[in-house]
Amino acid sequence: MNEVMNQLSKKQLQEVKRQMDLYVQGVADIIPTEELELKVARSVLENRPLKIKLGLDPSAPDVHLGHTVVLKKLKQFQDNGHIIQLLIGDFTGKIGDPTGKSVARKPLTTEEVEHNAKTYFEQFGKVVDMEKVELHYNSTWLSKLSFEDVIQLAGKITVARLMERDDFEERIAWGKPISLHEFFYPLMQGYDSVVLACDIELGGTDQHFNVLMGRHFQEKLGKEKQVALLMPLLEGLDGTEKMSKSKKNYIGIDESPDDMYGKSMSIPDKLMDKYFELITDFTPEQIQQIANELDSGALHPRDAKMLLAKTIVRMYHGSEAAENAEQRFVRVFQQGELPEEMTEVEWKGVFKTSIVDLLVDLNLLKSKSEARRMIESRGVKINNEKVEDIKLEVVITDGLILQVGKRKMVKIKTL
Amino acid sequence: MNEVMNQLSKKQLQEVKRQMDLYVQGVADIIPTEELELKVARSVLENRPLKIKLGLDPSAPDVHLGHTVVLKKLKQFQDNGHIIQLLIGDFTGKIGDPTGKSVARKPLTTEEVEHNAKTYFEQFGKVVDMEKVELHYNSTWLSKLSFEDVIQLAGKITVARLMERDDFEERIAWGKPISLHEFFYPLMQGYDSVVLACDIELGGTDQHFNVLMGRHFQEKLGKEKQVALLMPLLEGLDGTEKMSKSKKNYIGIDESPDDMYGKSMSIPDKLMDKYFELITDFTPEQIQQIANELDSGALHPRDAKMLLAKTIVRMYHGSEAAENAEQRFVRVFQQGELPEEMTEVEWKGVFKTSIVDLLVDLNLLKSKSEARRMIESRGVKINNEKVEDIKLEVVITDGLILQVGKRKMVKIKTL
Repeated sequence: MNEVMNQLSKKQLQEVKRQMDLYVQGVADIIPTEELELKVARSVLENRPLKIKLGLDPSAPDVHLGHTVVLKKLKQFQDNGHIIQLLIGDFTGKIGDPTGKSVARKPLTTEEVEHNAKTYFEQFGKVVDMEKVELHYNSTWLSKLSFEDVIQLAGKITVARLMERDDFEERIAWGKPISLHEFFYPLMQGYDSVVLACDIELGGTDQHFNVLMGRHFQEKLGKEKQVALLMPLLEGLDGTEKMSKSKKNYIGIDESPDDMYGKSMSIPDKLMDKYFELITDFTPEQIQQIANELDSGALHPRDAKMLLAKTIVRMYHGSEAAENAEQRFVRVFQQGELPEEMTEVEWKGVFKTSIVDLLVDLNLLKSKSEARRMIESRGVKINNEKVEDIKLEVVITDGLILQVGKRKMVKIKTL
Repeated sequence: MNEVMNQLSKKQLQEVKRQMDLYVQGVADIIPTEELELKVARSVLENRPLKIKLGLDPSAPDVHLGHTVVLKKLKQFQDNGHIIQLLIGDFTGKIGDPTGKSVARKPLTTEEVEHNAKTYFEQFGKVVDMEKVELHYNSTWLSKLSFEDVIQLAGKITVARLMERDDFEERIAWGKPISLHEFFYPLMQGYDSVVLACDIELGGTDQHFNVLMGRHFQEKLGKEKQVALLMPLLEGLDGTEKMSKSKKNYIGIDESPDDMYGKSMSIPDKLMDKYFELITDFTPEQIQQIANELDSGALHPRDAKMLLAKTIVRMYHGSEAAENAEQRFVRVFQQGELPEEMTEVEWKGVFKTSIVDLLVDLNLLKSKSEARRMIESRGVKINNEKVEDIKLEVVITDGLILQVGKRKMVKIKTL
């Protein structure tokens, strides 16, 4: 470490410090920070770019704001001349579920993988410069491994180490079966890093175990170890669960300006800081200023959220679209007959109920038949999504937003 | 089951019964007996031979009496027209130890594997007709498996099921590491049975888990399940541990008539019945008669053991050699100055000591220098093996036999 540092000029040392200050911003964990600094220092000394890997699952290519947390971090590296390695984990996707239990996990065809990858890239292009990105498909090397290769690799990791992964540990504790092939997934992710010879692997904190596999296998195979750079997980609109498509608590980066703006306005107040930090292009200083003004009362929380919403729309649709979305939102929700803040209703009823009952229970509509008509005329929205099924069963979660027509909108607070 | 049985003529039913009576002789476990009976019945009905698999480790080709327990069983099947499939597990032998920890487990070359296999077969030829045996090397198919094939296979077994194997369970309990590749060994053994489409797999009771893997994978891959036929393990000359080369408690089937006879005479009395049953060509009726005569006192245990020793030598060297070995043994040990039974000395000293100290401590020789001279002139034997190293450290085990010159012979009883 010191050896490299001693060779740096004062200007180079400053450059290392500048980059490090940038890279640690908003990060949840770096394993280990010293190695990251060493890699950056060597990169500056030798004028050699670092390789930053991000693994992607080819089965769910819809990109939402949760993804942009890592994308923004990637962009910082890219802006400083480093190389982004996007790794499409198509090998397992093409295999499907070998236990034959999950009908949902059908094998993906090569065409599907390529289509999904393309979808990713089109959306990623809104954050990083895709022209400069290295693309890799891990089937390129994994499909060529022989049984002997696999055994050699498997000999480099213990069963006990694999069982430390949170979800495995949990399933063992609950007596839920783990198929042997599942032990290969972390092994593959680790081996991908060996092949890509990456310096850094990026991931959410939920990727902690898998990203460390890269370090493990690189070391076991006599290579330089990658640094794990873990970003915080962004909670979705419900304010509790990780933003994800399956949880329906997400803002997709391909959504319309109005949907994006409206959904952003439903973000819980307590998460505003985190959203500003992790997904906007504001500097740490700007974010600090907003926090200060909120604290002092100089900035109204509603106005801060409008700034957030407008910023998000601007980032993905441009300034004009952002301006228009804001105006439409103000016209409908703020200048209408509704109160400035969304009505919050307390809910201590059942955990799950039908949409028709819910609308009546909340006094949004007077009768079940009226409720049915309103749904049929597509005038009911849940979390800004139109309800299309009259028989929809709604799981009541804290922060759920129900809208009837243009005017009536309530937010549920569970007790 | 009944369907098949109903189609059999009376004569065929008798034939099924005759074969079954033979196959269950001396067996420790059959999983499950009904399926074995069904397979035999179908074989008789359709005049189609069964396939009986025996797996062999190519790294230790010295065959001893312990091996003949399964070989004798194989011969019964062969004598009734069934096919023996000898499976050389060369695939793992050629890989060596992927953890890199065991220097001893060097990868075997193809030449070594073939040489070892040949050594096996030459010795097996003393029990079964090698002309009629099918030979298979599992590298033929295992080396062709791709990573995807391995994943598909691994998806058919759970981690929990693998951890049930006794030695894994024990190592987990003791916190000793298990490398992931070790989980593949039972998987391979199971897959070998799928490829060989065998009806029965033979093994010692210590192979219980591995042999059941064959049933497991055949079933998971939609094939007819093999029957597991498990033979008891033969204790070695120490009377407690399984006969094995590493324990030095074995009688090799390639040993000289004199060594074979002498070692056989050191078998503990309590194991005589088992040896008669498992490794001689005596019928159950003959064995019962010997047991009865021993019980009534009509047969002296020493004479029974001489019959056993002579039988073993006869089986591997012929009647004349057996007669001669017996005469030489009688001349040296029974008509000489030594007591009829070997002197037993009690030992409560250290667990391990040098051969020189041991000879003096046991009063077999008067001084250390005398002891050294006797070893150098190759006049000292441990368990009938000449001591060649003057610095040999001897691990004292119960039943260890020390011989000095032609006359002095003691057996150690540890306290």
